[in-house]
Amino acid sequence: MSASKTPINLFEFEDIARERLPKGEYDYIAGGATDEISVERNRRAYESWALRPRVLRDVSALDLSTTVLGTKVNLPVLIAPCGGHKKAHPDGEFATYRAAVARGTVLAVSANSNTSFEDLAKAANGHLWLQLYPFRDRALTKSWLDRAQGAGYEAICVTLDSQWPPKRERNIRNNYRRTRGVNYGQAAQGAGAPRPAGAEGGSDPAATWKDLEWIKSQTALPVVAKGIMTGEDVELCSEIGADGVIVSNHGGRHLDNTLATVEVLAEAAAAAKGKLEVFLDGGIRRGADVVKALALGAKAVFIGRPLFWGLAVDGEQGVVRVLDILREEMEITMAKCGRPNIASIDSTVLVKAPRL
Amino acid sequence: MSASKTPINLFEFEDIARERLPKGEYDYIAGGATDEISVERNRRAYESWALRPRVLRDVSALDLSTTVLGTKVNLPVLIAPCGGHKKAHPDGEFATYRAAVARGTVLAVSANSNTSFEDLAKAANGHLWLQLYPFRDRALTKSWLDRAQGAGYEAICVTLDSQWPPKRERNIRNNYRRTRGVNYGQAAQGAGAPRPAGAEGGSDPAATWKDLEWIKSQTALPVVAKGIMTGEDVELCSEIGADGVIVSNHGGRHLDNTLATVEVLAEAAAAAKGKLEVFLDGGIRRGADVVKALALGAKAVFIGRPLFWGLAVDGEQGVVRVLDILREEMEITMAKCGRPNIASIDSTVLVKAPRL
Amino acid sequence: MSASKTPINLFEFEDIARERLPKGEYDYIAGGATDEISVERNRRAYESWALRPRVLRDVSALDLSTTVLGTKVNLPVLIAPCGGHKKAHPDGEFATYRAAVARGTVLAVSANSNTSFEDLAKAANGHLWLQLYPFRDRALTKSWLDRAQGAGYEAICVTLDSQWPPKRERNIRNNYRRTRGVNYGQAAQGAGAPRPAGAEGGSDPAATWKDLEWIKSQTALPVVAKGIMTGEDVELCSEIGADGVIVSNHGGRHLDNTLATVEVLAEAAAAAKGKLEVFLDGGIRRGADVVKALALGAKAVFIGRPLFWGLAVDGEQGVVRVLDILREEMEITMAKCGRPNIASIDSTVLVKAPRL
Amino acid sequence: MSASKTPINLFEFEDIARERLPKGEYDYIAGGATDEISVERNRRAYESWALRPRVLRDVSALDLSTTVLGTKVNLPVLIAPCGGHKKAHPDGEFATYRAAVARGTVLAVSANSNTSFEDLAKAANGHLWLQLYPFRDRALTKSWLDRAQGAGYEAICVTLDSQWPPKRERNIRNNYRRTRGVNYGQAAQGAGAPRPAGAEGGSDPAATWKDLEWIKSQTALPVVAKGIMTGEDVELCSEIGADGVIVSNHGGRHLDNTLATVEVLAEAAAAAKGKLEVFLDGGIRRGADVVKALALGAKAVFIGRPLFWGLAVDGEQGVVRVLDILREEMEITMAKCGRPNIASIDSTVLVKAPRL
Repeated sequence: MSASKTPINLFEFEDIARERLPKGEYDYIAGGATDEISVERNRRAYESWALRPRVLRDVSALDLSTTVLGTKVNLPVLIAPCGGHKKAHPDGEFATYRAAVARGTVLAVSANSNTSFEDLAKAANGHLWLQLYPFRDRALTKSWLDRAQGAGYEAICVTLDSQWPPKRERNIRNNYRRTRGVNYGQAAQGAGAPRPAGAEGGSDPAATWKDLEWIKSQTALPVVAKGIMTGEDVELCSEIGADGVIVSNHGGRHLDNTLATVEVLAEAAAAAKGKLEVFLDGGIRRGADVVKALALGAKAVFIGRPLFWGLAVDGEQGVVRVLDILREEMEITMAKCGRPNIASIDSTVLVKAPRL
Repeated sequence: MSASKTPINLFEFEDIARERLPKGEYDYIAGGATDEISVERNRRAYESWALRPRVLRDVSALDLSTTVLGTKVNLPVLIAPCGGHKKAHPDGEFATYRAAVARGTVLAVSANSNTSFEDLAKAANGHLWLQLYPFRDRALTKSWLDRAQGAGYEAICVTLDSQWPPKRERNIRNNYRRTRGVNYGQAAQGAGAPRPAGAEGGSDPAATWKDLEWIKSQTALPVVAKGIMTGEDVELCSEIGADGVIVSNHGGRHLDNTLATVEVLAEAAAAAKGKLEVFLDGGIRRGADVVKALALGAKAVFIGRPLFWGLAVDGEQGVVRVLDILREEMEITMAKCGRPNIASIDSTVLVKAPRL
Repeated sequence: MSASKTPINLFEFEDIARERLPKGEYDYIAGGATDEISVERNRRAYESWALRPRVLRDVSALDLSTTVLGTKVNLPVLIAPCGGHKKAHPDGEFATYRAAVARGTVLAVSANSNTSFEDLAKAANGHLWLQLYPFRDRALTKSWLDRAQGAGYEAICVTLDSQWPPKRERNIRNNYRRTRGVNYGQAAQGAGAPRPAGAEGGSDPAATWKDLEWIKSQTALPVVAKGIMTGEDVELCSEIGADGVIVSNHGGRHLDNTLATVEVLAEAAAAAKGKLEVFLDGGIRRGADVVKALALGAKAVFIGRPLFWGLAVDGEQGVVRVLDILREEMEITMAKCGRPNIASIDSTVLVKAPRL
Repeated sequence: MSASKTPINLFEFEDIARERLPKGEYDYIAGGATDEISVERNRRAYESWALRPRVLRDVSALDLSTTVLGTKVNLPVLIAPCGGHKKAHPDGEFATYRAAVARGTVLAVSANSNTSFEDLAKAANGHLWLQLYPFRDRALTKSWLDRAQGAGYEAICVTLDSQWPPKRERNIRNNYRRTRGVNYGQAAQGAGAPRPAGAEGGSDPAATWKDLEWIKSQTALPVVAKGIMTGEDVELCSEIGADGVIVSNHGGRHLDNTLATVEVLAEAAAAAKGKLEVFLDGGIRRGADVVKALALGAKAVFIGRPLFWGLAVDGEQGVVRVLDILREEMEITMAKCGRPNIASIDSTVLVKAPRL
């Protein structure tokens, strides 16, 4: 489609973004590990559940609001921690944050953001989470935890699936060089040796559950574990007192050949036993995907790549539009399934749809 | 194929119609909601059942006649309520009605018809049903019920899956503007605010089962609920005394990501417990599809889009030919499965055909 | 491939035949009913079983011979009754018969052959079956039964799936006109009114199991029922004393939307309870297909279309080569599955291969 | 891709090799039997299992070493016995052997090698197995067993799936002529009559389990049976005292229409009951494939075709790079599944991934 057209769904947002971004940046954002089987599966797996329409249930007053870790959000779509928003728009994280505030949702700020997480917090009065890794240097971790709380962050998100660098072949072919995020100051230079292309920020490959337990003990903020793909690991998160988990395969960017995140959701929700909140990221492109994830046990979902497509198309307003499209599509889905609010979305909304 | 050729099956009817209709009209008729997954699934699902040929059962005198709501029809293929037949031919609903009469079947007239439903009834002496919505204005509903009965309509079909406007991306891209049907007079202007493109006629999003029960109480005609996709809703229809249900996802035009209608049929028929007649629309293109739907519990099926392809190709005679093709293909299927009449079509005609 | 190349498998035989035959003839032979789903499924279904290789079982002396209805054949591949071999080669059925004799197998002669079945019998000293229909005129049937026995035919094959004309769209588009076979003399003119294109020879749509029972009572030859696709009909064949059944959907040329014949084989073999011999036609193109069919309960298989490809490529020698290719491929399969002879081919040769 | 690029995965190695090798040689290496269904299935079957990521398990010190038949290797990837390495590089088996030594793994030398197996053994101080067939001439077999032991070979691999020549259609079309390996001296001329194209070296079609038992009795070296595809044959190997089995369908080069080797692995491992080591070849192209095979019961895997792609791209260094890529990809997989060493790879690493 022509870049002058207004995109009407998230796929068209990506189409326009692909035209506008340098190939290396587009590929970095869109690509995944090795054969990109998990990237594709994250997306296609939604089609393996069908929605069950219900009629005559008074859907005149739809309410999409919900709470995440006790915070009210206007819709159950949050913005995932993704490094370097300036890749897609010069306003970078500021644009994204203003969009999140405008639509009443949470922005999870990446450790590898282009904007200092403390500066960003001063720019508006919304809901921010800070994402970090189990750094090799506990002093660095402690410093971030304290600074985040001081800056008004409402939760800490610990990414656990990045303790070993992935193989992203598009980046290798493009000879893509990532720039280091601004949050790593002089102190952080000791956090890790120079990393291979595609490696994530200084995450310690020797980290164990003791490290996550220690992080939880060092902050009053809720702690959410990101990158969980098994019931066993949800249980371990529960045991060390985590407040939430994000079922995520890092958008298929770290380990290929996994199930789709939505396929793991039921297992994760069962293991959570209601003790922690279960979130999901991966492949959300339609409002129906959000409803399916909620029906399978997610409290809310995160979007990652679509945030960049929104930024690339129209900065803050692009991200706003991405959120609005998902809202409009969720409304249609909820109305036609007879679910006037988030609490009414349960497993009876779905049925497995055998591949034809 | 060349437009001068005589189409020999319903796919060729569509091919010719596509050439003749303006793109916006063709897309409006052929298209569906968002990714059109349900449009495609409605069609492909028929292939997931195989027919079981039977031999030596005297098929020299095939009889395709049956009854629907007590009315005898010459074949179990009815014409679904579809708005605005003039989109495809200047004779509009008159052509369709004459074809239905010629072949001894029912025409269900859309609330959004291009011809006044009362005028149409005067044009011939056939079988008509009137389709309407649970309007916001009960006085409007009551007026239509009374006028339909007065005009000789034999049943009321209440469309229940259109209480919220769908997202039809072809229409958005084509900037397609629907014209309002002629049945909505001055009174109807209060029935709804100006609606977004693609929205259905004034259906009340606040409607509940009480409204359907009220409609049933206000007319002596049989009431058929259209747009049912779950056993639970069939049971609710049964409880309020409806006479029939049409298992329908509106041809995939309202909510995407549903099962195919033929996949829901067995669940619906089981829930009906013989208390209401179960009909189906969606994806019927071959006589074998009709036989499969009957074997899975349908009393009869409706065709929607093929009616427009027939009109576009040759007006009344095009619709006649569409019905004749389905009849000829049904005859082959029934003869070769050893089923001389409609009553002999039961579940032993079918077997699940695993995807190869 | 170039037509001057020697075809090395049956697919290449078809490729060359397609180049050489007039399009109408090629389409008549290759095509099937309506959407040709059964044509395709007959072929692809073989892939849904995998072979289980076995080692170290002394396969130095392979023996492919077996018996069919008490007659010894050199390999379990017979030639199906197909009308009009002159479509593919001027020598017609004579060429085919000489090839069958050369390779020690049975030719089943079609009622619609281009050569009088009595003349053909005089041309060599091999194994012939005669195929016929339950004609409307019992005197005609009786006459053929007597003449066949007199001419040395060894079995009667009664085709049961052709009591209603099929819809073959390639033929309709090509305006293809079949010529009537030579076996129908003056007497046969009363057997049926002029038939629509594609209809089979005078088969009585009113025929029932009584008619097959009567045929069996009127001849001393073994009677084989062709066109059986359910266990129920195998049981009925058994009850009226038939000697064999051919599991067949007429190569997908009569009723579309059936299972593949190889998918029905196990059900048919179970119903036969060893009382009648079970044969199969449909989709055989590789020696491995033959082995799979035998493992699922077939006594032998028939080839249909490949016979025409052989004739079109090189007349008698082409058919010989088709049979030799199947033999060579069967040998490889049997040797590598550790099965030195036909009797050793049982269900342990196979395992279901899930679609990947 | 351009041939001047450095390949970053094994698929790119094949792409470059395809450009460099004569078509006949490339087809000989890449091709398989008849329709090449097993070639394709060997590869695709890996995708039917998904990996289960695990977090926080200290993966800072990965150890990929293991033992095969008591020999320590640096990674569980061995080099399969493949005839004629000079097809891909003038250094032939010498290059491959040096690569195996450089990376600490085993080279299984083919009976049909371009280099005398005794000469090769003198070239370095690594780990060699010798592959042979159950020759028609037991004296020849005995001579090879003795010479192998004398030359320092550490195991004997007996190929059992080649007792009958396959049908490889690419070779037939290319009129491909194999050259006989150098290991067959004057004495071997009596081992077999001139063989058809594509036949394997003198393997006796009359061989039985007695012959394998005899081979085992004639050597002090461990004996590994190659070409096993059923639990039954694993049990027979166990009974005659074999030390290992290689689950293999000869890369789909002998019998088509089998399951993938990785699909047979669990059945084979169960039948082995821990009494023999189970290996696998077939379709290994990614480190994740190796981990999956180990999780399903393999002690180690073999690579075949990728060895030729490595040779064709860069001789010894190409093979080294192929092994290094598999190692790097295994490391990622193990780290991200929380498996620091080979012993920790068990069945909980996997879950069946339904086809979407």
